Amino acid sequence: MMCDVTTASTPLPPAICVLGAGLIGGSLIRAAAGAVPVSAWSPSPTTREAVADDGFAVHDTLDAALEAAGKAEALVVLAAPVTEFAPLIKAVDRVAPTVALTDVAGVKASVAELVDELAPRARYVGSHPMAGTQHSGWAAGSADLFRDTAWVTCLTEDSDQDVWAAVAGLALTIGSRVVPVDADAHDAAVARISHLPHLLALTLAQVGAGGGDLALALAAGSFADGTRVAASRPELVRAMCEGNREALLTAVDDALGILGVARGSLASTGSLAKLTEAGHAGRLRLDQRGQNLHEVTLRGSDLIDELLAVGAAGGYLTGLSTAGTELVATAWYPIDDYD
Amino acid sequence: MMCDVTTASTPLPPAICVLGAGLIGGSLIRAAAGAVPVSAWSPSPTTREAVADDGFAVHDTLDAALEAAGKAEALVVLAAPVTEFAPLIKAVDRVAPTVALTDVAGVKASVAELVDELAPRARYVGSHPMAGTQHSGWAAGSADLFRDTAWVTCLTEDSDQDVWAAVAGLALTIGSRVVPVDADAHDAAVARISHLPHLLALTLAQVGAGGGDLALALAAGSFADGTRVAASRPELVRAMCEGNREALLTAVDDALGILGVARGSLASTGSLAKLTEAGHAGRLRLDQRGQNLHEVTLRGSDLIDELLAVGAAGGYLTGLSTAGTELVATAWYPIDDYD
Repeated sequence: MMCDVTTASTPLPPAICVLGAGLIGGSLIRAAAGAVPVSAWSPSPTTREAVADDGFAVHDTLDAALEAAGKAEALVVLAAPVTEFAPLIKAVDRVAPTVALTDVAGVKASVAELVDELAPRARYVGSHPMAGTQHSGWAAGSADLFRDTAWVTCLTEDSDQDVWAAVAGLALTIGSRVVPVDADAHDAAVARISHLPHLLALTLAQVGAGGGDLALALAAGSFADGTRVAASRPELVRAMCEGNREALLTAVDDALGILGVARGSLASTGSLAKLTEAGHAGRLRLDQRGQNLHEVTLRGSDLIDELLAVGAAGGYLTGLSTAGTELVATAWYPIDDYD
Repeated sequence: MMCDVTTASTPLPPAICVLGAGLIGGSLIRAAAGAVPVSAWSPSPTTREAVADDGFAVHDTLDAALEAAGKAEALVVLAAPVTEFAPLIKAVDRVAPTVALTDVAGVKASVAELVDELAPRARYVGSHPMAGTQHSGWAAGSADLFRDTAWVTCLTEDSDQDVWAAVAGLALTIGSRVVPVDADAHDAAVARISHLPHLLALTLAQVGAGGGDLALALAAGSFADGTRVAASRPELVRAMCEGNREALLTAVDDALGILGVARGSLASTGSLAKLTEAGHAGRLRLDQRGQNLHEVTLRGSDLIDELLAVGAAGGYLTGLSTAGTELVATAWYPIDDYD
């Protein structure tokens, strides 16, 4: 449905409580601080001290953080490595069982299952900011990390719409484009555009180093860019990639197949025509993305379906507001597909 | 041998004649213009006009360019795509058969064979500036393209030392680090750090695009960097990679092997430990390259062996001068290896 935009307030959580203060959590703490009350906790005393030294509210214990979050009706944000989620989610169930909960992990279906299992009363909406660098830790964070990047918010017919709106509104407020998707579609997509790039960068770094000092001395832009994310901490890459095993295997098999066919063609006919043409066309699609998008306004009873259609089509939300009790979204969407 | 640096003049060619005015040739024309007389030729009338409009000397025909180069004892630089070299080399043999000749192609052994076959009297020294972008054409060039990048100069006991010194001196003068290597070592190295990165970028671009609009919408830094060189013109990538087939097949097989083993490990045990550790270590070697290098001065009867040892060890030349009739090189070299 297309209609006029109504000026109204962007939904926001009453407060947020960020568990983990590394690159993503630390950036969120900084970015959100101007918009909502923010408190944080980290398992590392050194990190807690650094966060406090920079002027942010830090709890000494996880339980204290969750008790305060429950009282403030805060949105709790899991911002630890995904391999550390289980004890955090158990603590949520023990201390603040019905809290609004999100996370910033790079996999979504498996986290949703974990929350269902360990904190079934929590009002959970998964999210994934598509931002990062090869650096990590509190000091690497930045209030601008999320600006002009995509922020995935998981959405289904069963989602708690208020929590979803609070997560999406927070992401919009800190400068992200919000992409509503279901968890499986997210996992399949990021396997191709986030996890596979890490595996290929690690592979390339190893093959390059196998060429010894001369090869590394000659390495220039193509090698430096192609291996940039191989500088990421191995344990973080493992946590991210191993947590998305099924979807990543599909992407790796696609890559092995494409590279293997190119290898065969190079060996037998000497030609790389097929790989160079198809790969170039793929990259052009990246450079041209968003060019067919037009602004639309979404509201009404089909809102969830319409939001999911926006995400699946490569579109995103740029605004969200509550007009009375109704949620109204502004989105960029490929208009030709829109009915 | 270590000794004092003697202040003397850097050897330079009396003039250069650049055949081809794309990204690399066009950048060389601009970069060298302050140091030596430069003339150019391009098969494209449009390009010739653009070069002339920017104030550089351009010949209307290939034969005129080579005749003038012969008279000026200029260094002729083949700066066309390597697939276009054969007619250029034939013209050299016909018009200026004993001219000093180099090229800037990304493969070296096959070009040396082509020159041996088609212009056997030319005094050829292969070179390869390890610089470039994903853009091409005269307009994409820049006088700064070679600054602080590696410039390979091929060297053997049979090389014409004067031509080698002129090529190396020119590269140093325009800001490059000169890496002396033999052609086969160059080809094996660049297969790993230049040609394989292109094939992996093209593969990644294709797998990403296979994820459709959602995947491309979510693509962020790791995908953008990992596919950057897939934006290069396919015919240039083909010319470069297909011309280094044997060495590239070895590098591709290494990559397929490493990625295939990682795929098996992920599928069977769920672990990516081996790939993430080894790839991260490889990338660290890139980041740490050059840290063990120390300045040495090379001269005397073993100079060619010493220059090749510098290149093979990941070192490079920063200065070259003729003191009387003797060539003296300043190099950065891993001092622990140096006797």
